[in-house]
Amino acid sequence: MTVHQTSQLSRYPIDALTALLGDVPIITDRTIVRRRSRDFFWYSPILAEELKAVAGDIIVRPRDEADVIRTAAACAKLRIPLTVRAGGTGNYGQAMPLQGGVLLDMTDITGVVWQKPGVVRVRAGTNILALDQTTRETNYELRMHPSTKRTATIGGFVAGGSGGVGSVTYGGLREPGNILAARIVTVEEEPRVLELRQDAAQKVNRAYGTTGIITELEMPLAPAWPWIDVIAAFDTFEEAFEAGRAIAHADGVVKKLVTPIAWPIPGYFGSLKSACPEGKAILISMIAEPFLESFRAILGGRGTITYERPSEEGPGKVPLYEFAWNHTTLQWLKTDRSITYLQLLYPHDRLAESVAEMMALFPDEVLPHLEFIRFAGNITCSALPVVRYSTPERLNEIIAMHEARGVFVANPHVVSLEDGSRHKRADADQLGFKADVDPMGLLNPGKMASFVAVR
Amino acid sequence: MTVHQTSQLSRYPIDALTALLGDVPIITDRTIVRRRSRDFFWYSPILAEELKAVAGDIIVRPRDEADVIRTAAACAKLRIPLTVRAGGTGNYGQAMPLQGGVLLDMTDITGVVWQKPGVVRVRAGTNILALDQTTRETNYELRMHPSTKRTATIGGFVAGGSGGVGSVTYGGLREPGNILAARIVTVEEEPRVLELRQDAAQKVNRAYGTTGIITELEMPLAPAWPWIDVIAAFDTFEEAFEAGRAIAHADGVVKKLVTPIAWPIPGYFGSLKSACPEGKAILISMIAEPFLESFRAILGGRGTITYERPSEEGPGKVPLYEFAWNHTTLQWLKTDRSITYLQLLYPHDRLAESVAEMMALFPDEVLPHLEFIRFAGNITCSALPVVRYSTPERLNEIIAMHEARGVFVANPHVVSLEDGSRHKRADADQLGFKADVDPMGLLNPGKMASFVAVR
Repeated sequence: MTVHQTSQLSRYPIDALTALLGDVPIITDRTIVRRRSRDFFWYSPILAEELKAVAGDIIVRPRDEADVIRTAAACAKLRIPLTVRAGGTGNYGQAMPLQGGVLLDMTDITGVVWQKPGVVRVRAGTNILALDQTTRETNYELRMHPSTKRTATIGGFVAGGSGGVGSVTYGGLREPGNILAARIVTVEEEPRVLELRQDAAQKVNRAYGTTGIITELEMPLAPAWPWIDVIAAFDTFEEAFEAGRAIAHADGVVKKLVTPIAWPIPGYFGSLKSACPEGKAILISMIAEPFLESFRAILGGRGTITYERPSEEGPGKVPLYEFAWNHTTLQWLKTDRSITYLQLLYPHDRLAESVAEMMALFPDEVLPHLEFIRFAGNITCSALPVVRYSTPERLNEIIAMHEARGVFVANPHVVSLEDGSRHKRADADQLGFKADVDPMGLLNPGKMASFVAVR
Repeated sequence: MTVHQTSQLSRYPIDALTALLGDVPIITDRTIVRRRSRDFFWYSPILAEELKAVAGDIIVRPRDEADVIRTAAACAKLRIPLTVRAGGTGNYGQAMPLQGGVLLDMTDITGVVWQKPGVVRVRAGTNILALDQTTRETNYELRMHPSTKRTATIGGFVAGGSGGVGSVTYGGLREPGNILAARIVTVEEEPRVLELRQDAAQKVNRAYGTTGIITELEMPLAPAWPWIDVIAAFDTFEEAFEAGRAIAHADGVVKKLVTPIAWPIPGYFGSLKSACPEGKAILISMIAEPFLESFRAILGGRGTITYERPSEEGPGKVPLYEFAWNHTTLQWLKTDRSITYLQLLYPHDRLAESVAEMMALFPDEVLPHLEFIRFAGNITCSALPVVRYSTPERLNEIIAMHEARGVFVANPHVVSLEDGSRHKRADADQLGFKADVDPMGLLNPGKMASFVAVR
């Protein structure tokens, strides 16, 4: 893989581009461009090395869809790569411009287009927390969000994510109904604006922005419950897992997060330390307030509730979900970069056995952090275990050993969709669709590795 | 079992009772009392014979909880049995007064006490359709309702039902969180009013009114979607089943009903005849409007959609759910009383195999009608097959053959909770609780057969 490094002499006609862009806002300051060309790729020691020099040539900040179209047309005419970016919260370089060119910063294209009960139409650059605050006025919120909700955008979530807080109830973004429509701009000399509805919308899901520039999304909403953040501590990880499984299977208990985490991971949860007793496994949950009593009854005598308070996510607050999903990994990385992680999907029909098998296989090397989710209608676990990192060879060996035993791995240590996404991919013909909407292969080149430009 | 028949000379001191009741409204007209002592027990040819003479002595129609307390006190003082009744939509004599006495008609105790987002507190005699119409003003509705929604009450549903339309998403009433609280009146000379919250509320769930008189319920609400009634027709029942299974497993598709039904059952669906082609199996569904496109995509090329319109349940309308759950059976019984039915629960981990096994075992005798539901967190099928009835012995043989093969049967041909309810029962100590709230065993005597009066 070759990566493009920014230099005063770009290989692209940037001056010609700015002329075509007219008054569309741009940023050319090399320090800023370089900084915004990065995401949280450094979670992976492999990508940290591989992508460290990646940078775009120029940031374009469209104010509206017309600016997006103008930029797409200009890039098509001049054959300049165009990589869409927003919150920059990805973990494997989803929005990093491997071949330089334009970074299209979508964060000024914001706001709700319309809302009806249970459905919202929103501009792609809208921050997810801001979106939930808007829809919450009518007692609705998004079905699911990443643990990066406070900084991420809805467009970035759909383009680079796969699920998260809420997937224990609704499954991932790939499930039919979890993305109702996407409006995209194609990258051609005369860009088209396409409305992709229902199944067709899956063509932009987790495609890292390679299959059109998303400008609007139509998303289903769920009731906005008052959420309670809860931590329960257990003597063993097995007990935390079993309690979590009982909660995950309780269809009458409205929940958004059910996360068993093995010691010593909670030892790195700085501000939560008092709720994470030394040596104990924990179960992190978000439960709708009216069902907290049911939650406690299901726990029965198991474990000790060490933390219980209304979830708050405004300025100065730290919601519990920032200790779950890939924020769990981040909490440890804050003080110790010797570890990394994996993204697993356990088989639903032998979940407990499979989790136990992996724990026995890698004691002290792969530390369990599970996320209960629905996947294709069944309760199972996604997992983001903390891995004590040694070498790339050993990491690949660990991955192979999981796969050989029926645990799916979405490898977060590679940049291409084909190698990385696996079970998170939508069942949609993204490759075929790209030929239609980005025939020159200018969108985020290098990410959809199997694509060959058609003209 | 001895049953009490109404007569001019009651074995109970009815005059003393009316004196104690004061101005509490009563009905003593024997024709009315006899008629209101019945429910839809005649779905069972066995119960039809066994219960045909059952009648209470007097109907009491409390106007409020104070009237209920007064009636409970009077019955306790005079040792008169008290059987609570409302819409009378039960199918196995749940509210039929086996030993006569007072029929407590709750249908005048109605109305919403309070509502907050996602939760409603409602008086027990409130009609379920009326309740949904009220909560719908704020875009909420009940999570689930019986197919008798238009005539049944919420109290009757909790006391005599187990789940229904909506259980494909939320499981049955027995799941933690599906009944948030119940307020009950005890039957003692000085009745107490108890508030049972969360798990404790399960003590009145499907207890046929034997464990206290429910006056109020606190129920969780779900978003009120615009529901679309859909029928798809298939060449074989297996195809209808597989399509239903795919829909049931689609966590992103909001649904309330997924019902595969074998031919010739739809041949009895009078007003729906044009949507039920000769010889075809059908799949009945209720899908939230924004997800109809996803629903169609999941069907793919399978089947033919023969019916698709917004669900309407007002006067003069027939919602599709009145062809599902035990209304399916009713449609056939309208013109032919030679059939009856069973209530089954299939094992989730070998669902398709088990359904196929039963079909092979009883061709043309037990005709498949399945209801996809969640049960303890897993997708499986409840079933109300139409049974071509011959003798009680053969019916019991069919039941035994199901049970021997791992299919649970909640026998709808018996009156006692112990024999009938099985997998529908809540995991709560209803027997022990009855000793506390009805120590003389006056509430609906004969239904909780294992109870012995404690004083």
